[in-house]
Amino acid sequence: MTAPLRVAITGAAGQIGYSLLFRVASGEMLGPDQPVILQLLELPVALDALKGVAMEVTDCGFPLVRDIICTDDQATAFKDADIVLCVGSKPRGPGQLRSDLIKANGPIFTGQGQAIDANASADCKVLVVGNPCNTNCLIAMSQAKRIPKENWHAMTRLDQNRAVGQLSNAAGVSAGDVKNVFVWGNHSPTMVPDITHGTIGGEAIADVVDGGWLADSFDQTVRTRGKAIIAARGKSSAASAANAAIDHVHDWFLGTGHNDYVSMAVCSDGSYGVPEGLIFSFPCKITGRGTYEIVQGIEVSGEVRERMQKTIDELVSEREAVADLL
Amino acid sequence: MTAPLRVAITGAAGQIGYSLLFRVASGEMLGPDQPVILQLLELPVALDALKGVAMEVTDCGFPLVRDIICTDDQATAFKDADIVLCVGSKPRGPGQLRSDLIKANGPIFTGQGQAIDANASADCKVLVVGNPCNTNCLIAMSQAKRIPKENWHAMTRLDQNRAVGQLSNAAGVSAGDVKNVFVWGNHSPTMVPDITHGTIGGEAIADVVDGGWLADSFDQTVRTRGKAIIAARGKSSAASAANAAIDHVHDWFLGTGHNDYVSMAVCSDGSYGVPEGLIFSFPCKITGRGTYEIVQGIEVSGEVRERMQKTIDELVSEREAVADLL
Repeated sequence: MTAPLRVAITGAAGQIGYSLLFRVASGEMLGPDQPVILQLLELPVALDALKGVAMEVTDCGFPLVRDIICTDDQATAFKDADIVLCVGSKPRGPGQLRSDLIKANGPIFTGQGQAIDANASADCKVLVVGNPCNTNCLIAMSQAKRIPKENWHAMTRLDQNRAVGQLSNAAGVSAGDVKNVFVWGNHSPTMVPDITHGTIGGEAIADVVDGGWLADSFDQTVRTRGKAIIAARGKSSAASAANAAIDHVHDWFLGTGHNDYVSMAVCSDGSYGVPEGLIFSFPCKITGRGTYEIVQGIEVSGEVRERMQKTIDELVSEREAVADLL
Repeated sequence: MTAPLRVAITGAAGQIGYSLLFRVASGEMLGPDQPVILQLLELPVALDALKGVAMEVTDCGFPLVRDIICTDDQATAFKDADIVLCVGSKPRGPGQLRSDLIKANGPIFTGQGQAIDANASADCKVLVVGNPCNTNCLIAMSQAKRIPKENWHAMTRLDQNRAVGQLSNAAGVSAGDVKNVFVWGNHSPTMVPDITHGTIGGEAIADVVDGGWLADSFDQTVRTRGKAIIAARGKSSAASAANAAIDHVHDWFLGTGHNDYVSMAVCSDGSYGVPEGLIFSFPCKITGRGTYEIVQGIEVSGEVRERMQKTIDELVSEREAVADLL
């Protein structure tokens, strides 16, 4: 029998956590034959609610769930974890600037980075979902002495999936027919969705989808989708964010099933002129179970290059804002 | 390519709906090769929120989703539906009696029953999740002139899954090792969990699990689990209810994968002395895609028989309370 993997989830009783846990438990993230032990972390104030959520997981009778641990102690949550999903973060308050949000989250992620590095499996894979996810991930990674830099990712898969959703609707095809669309940079409005190498049913996207819509609407829709969801639902994206986390980890461990790229915000090695060490969304190929490489040799248009510089500049300034934590 | 199935969901923007939609869309209910068209019904007041939920489904880029329809019109929602999940119902108000709740929901389910019968596929399968689900299902079924009685089910799978979860925890085994535990009767505190024919790892449950716990705690825990979840979470069961709906329909269409029973509240044919026409939870075997039979020849102990009578009596009195609607 396959040994269980320990999956730690922070902020597990929150909205995204509630959409995430049950799909991890059912096998959607790691496949139908991979048992899991859920190690759930919450703030003390949310521990009762978390226990209620864990009761509901038990009430599903999922064959893959071997154990559920509910705790407000980081060392317990991260103990021997094979995968950590950092979902919890301080949300942005009314009128709060992004720079203030970054500083408010900094200490959370230094603490979590240290606790993960001290307690998790030596090859633990970490996905930071809680925003601002790129810089939160940078902060956590900076605390690691033991866990390799390649193992610290932030999530831009939601942005990629939003782009795919828009393109498949525009073309009137299944989302599964849209390939190799990805996002450069920061999970923020400076992100750069890149469709220049993407295909729909094997054809170049610009040959299939209306050029006017692509120019006027597509990019803006993807970059501001989070706000549009809040306006419609009255709540921020939860199930779609959870789904993107599942997609990210699924592909990281099990591959994409095609010769495709996926967007992963990973530690820059200097590819495409992105400063080394930034957590930056690149097109990535999965090379094995839990390993990836940044796709090389992609031609970057002048316009994309210009916009990439803006998202690089933003990430550099975010890094400067938290320099004392790194 | 497999033709898509049309899945209508009522109350789609509610808590259970939000936990349900994304798992239906990802293929967990009908398998990874079955495309779906989601036909989502909400009250006019919740239509904006529903559109936000549909945006999030789009943002997942699910390859199996062929279309998403959001509507407050029953005829549109149920048009050509192959499966209807009746999730929406009026919740019980503070201090409201069960009998008042039944009367408050009655007109909703006469309307939905008529609209389903008039608009859905002739072989449409209906699962009523909204409580009181047995009698709501009875009311809806009573309106049908075209769709066979066998196609109208109410959900007791959550009760079965809760029983399995408790037993697997008590035995320290995977929930997948617990077989043929089921529930008789009404989805209410009169339900009768029956473990007398169940097994854990192939052995009789009474030989594996502590008899004192079985006698003192198991049954009570299962029957009052809904209240315990509310006490812990501050909200009623949503993800676990959605999961049970997925399990019910999955097994109804794709089988149990074993020679196992599952709890389904179906139209009684008089088996086990249950009055004909009541929607009653029996142990059921899946005999084909969308067909089932009530398992016959199960030995019913004197104690179980006595308790079955109470849940029968309750369902009979519920039927009397809504006699004018049938």
